[in-house]
Amino acid sequence: MTIYTVSLIGFGGVNRALAELIAERNETWQRELGFGLNIVGVSDLHLGSVISPNGIDARMLTATRFEKGGFANLSGGSAEPRSLHVVRSAPADIVVEATYTDPATGEPAISHCRAAFEAGRSVVTTNKGPVALAAAELKAMAAACGVGFEYEGAVMSGTPVIRLAQSALAGAEITGFAGILNGTSNFVLGRMQTGLGFAEAVAEAQAAGYAEADPTADVEGFDVRLKVVILANEVLGATLTPDQVDCAGISALTPAALAEAEAAGTRWKLIGSAARDASGRITAAVRAERLPLAHPLASVSGAVNAITFQTGLLGDVTVTGPGAGRIETAFALLSDIVALHRKATPLALREAAE
Amino acid sequence: MTIYTVSLIGFGGVNRALAELIAERNETWQRELGFGLNIVGVSDLHLGSVISPNGIDARMLTATRFEKGGFANLSGGSAEPRSLHVVRSAPADIVVEATYTDPATGEPAISHCRAAFEAGRSVVTTNKGPVALAAAELKAMAAACGVGFEYEGAVMSGTPVIRLAQSALAGAEITGFAGILNGTSNFVLGRMQTGLGFAEAVAEAQAAGYAEADPTADVEGFDVRLKVVILANEVLGATLTPDQVDCAGISALTPAALAEAEAAGTRWKLIGSAARDASGRITAAVRAERLPLAHPLASVSGAVNAITFQTGLLGDVTVTGPGAGRIETAFALLSDIVALHRKATPLALREAAE
Repeated sequence: MTIYTVSLIGFGGVNRALAELIAERNETWQRELGFGLNIVGVSDLHLGSVISPNGIDARMLTATRFEKGGFANLSGGSAEPRSLHVVRSAPADIVVEATYTDPATGEPAISHCRAAFEAGRSVVTTNKGPVALAAAELKAMAAACGVGFEYEGAVMSGTPVIRLAQSALAGAEITGFAGILNGTSNFVLGRMQTGLGFAEAVAEAQAAGYAEADPTADVEGFDVRLKVVILANEVLGATLTPDQVDCAGISALTPAALAEAEAAGTRWKLIGSAARDASGRITAAVRAERLPLAHPLASVSGAVNAITFQTGLLGDVTVTGPGAGRIETAFALLSDIVALHRKATPLALREAAE
Repeated sequence: MTIYTVSLIGFGGVNRALAELIAERNETWQRELGFGLNIVGVSDLHLGSVISPNGIDARMLTATRFEKGGFANLSGGSAEPRSLHVVRSAPADIVVEATYTDPATGEPAISHCRAAFEAGRSVVTTNKGPVALAAAELKAMAAACGVGFEYEGAVMSGTPVIRLAQSALAGAEITGFAGILNGTSNFVLGRMQTGLGFAEAVAEAQAAGYAEADPTADVEGFDVRLKVVILANEVLGATLTPDQVDCAGISALTPAALAEAEAAGTRWKLIGSAARDASGRITAAVRAERLPLAHPLASVSGAVNAITFQTGLLGDVTVTGPGAGRIETAFALLSDIVALHRKATPLALREAAE
């Protein structure tokens, strides 16, 4: 039986949801997926850190209401976050990176990834920062270290977009994509269609838990821009950085503009897109676009995300699914671990040799 | 460099399209996918058969206008189809099965698969028959023979539905699915919405090349039923046979019924679905359903196909894409070969050892 040891870096909503899944489903996974998970390290800015080579009971970890610094009460625990120490020293096969995204530097996540690879550990992450800003370097480093690096959750949470493009559509000759990649702004647009002003709609999104206290990254397109960079680089072989992508959001739109568009048989959507032209040049953009109502993306409503890949051999292929949610995003991490397992990366080989 | 030898069983639209892709893209595939293809055998009911261990020029094969029995003019050729002989004797790593689908027996495709496995050859197929009627037996046989068996094109042509469910959604706890799985009937329904009668709409579909001379399998749901059986067995672990699936088509619908539904904010669609209930029992059906206009499948129009997977961890994930077309279906075969290649099945190991 294969058990992978994991360190959880960041213990907010996503990694907490993963720990809940481990607590509830480890036996099922061993039976149906061929592996189980054992948490040997956790670090969190608020709660502290803990290393436990024999494993930490996932039920205890998720059921306990820890105070600030509360991991100090655990055996092997500390009130200090010590993330890099946990990455390096907890004996994990896989480091699960789910700290906050810094869109400017990608830190501290990039350092966490590098330290994991150096220590011979694979990384799975839902963090857009390291993937948008340093994917090429990190992929090369993982390969050189003989470990895996998977990041399905960096775009559209657990909806398998990156994996679909890289794996199931390999050979289909993807020439571009266009998507609704931010559920918050799509929710806000939907509420504005009912006549609400921008500020009112944002307040509703905040009340519903879709928007953060500072909604700028969502409504001004910065979140979508990181996802466009990730997808363009992954799927089209581009080498874009975020500053090379023109970016505009939805804050300038008015209910009147939305109503006028609707009356004309069109609908405003915040679209992230990229395409390779005949000369091989790749252009990418984030902007509100007026789509015909019959366009497949026009009917994507609420906090749902969707992306259409344009391909040479298949025409358009569209995937629609959740783009957020703690369990949905934790599934992305699980699916990354499934991918590592099935690729029989050194993980599995090491396991088999033991 | 890895070159896989292939036999093309059936040389109708799909395998001819694959041969065209080989003629045009073999160098690109070697560079981008890591392998090329070399055709060493072809058989066709109309054209005859040919075995050529060193390979058959794909450009010649696709550019020549062969008469009935015309393969006899080729070196190693015969006017007789001799499909089983080609499967057994042409030195192919991979047998590409694309003969017609017999929905009652699955033959001769099932025999082609068995013979291929016995000869140590992997099979990729777009043929619904063997997958709907004998998948369990054939998968076990392929595994016992140490070869691969892939069949993405059996449902929704090259749109990666089976691969998505089996691979990218592994662990997401799929509980059911509902889809528009037949483009012809969806096209016919769309035309009837404009006021055309059933017979007129079918005639238009025939003129557009969407419907066959006998449209029964498409409009009465029999084609969808095979796909529902394939997906329920693959994705839900069912062991259904086609006769266990209630099946009704669209021939009883009238333009008046469609208009009435539309006025009530609903739309008729031919839906193939299956679900596992709380007790673990799996039910499946094919029938016309009145969907609310806001339902994601209600807006799928024309010959496009779509399927929604219901999952425990991700909620609904929908894939929309082509469900037919010769190049689109040939891509399914290519994607199957990519999957064999990446799984490093004995194919690749053998290649590496040589």
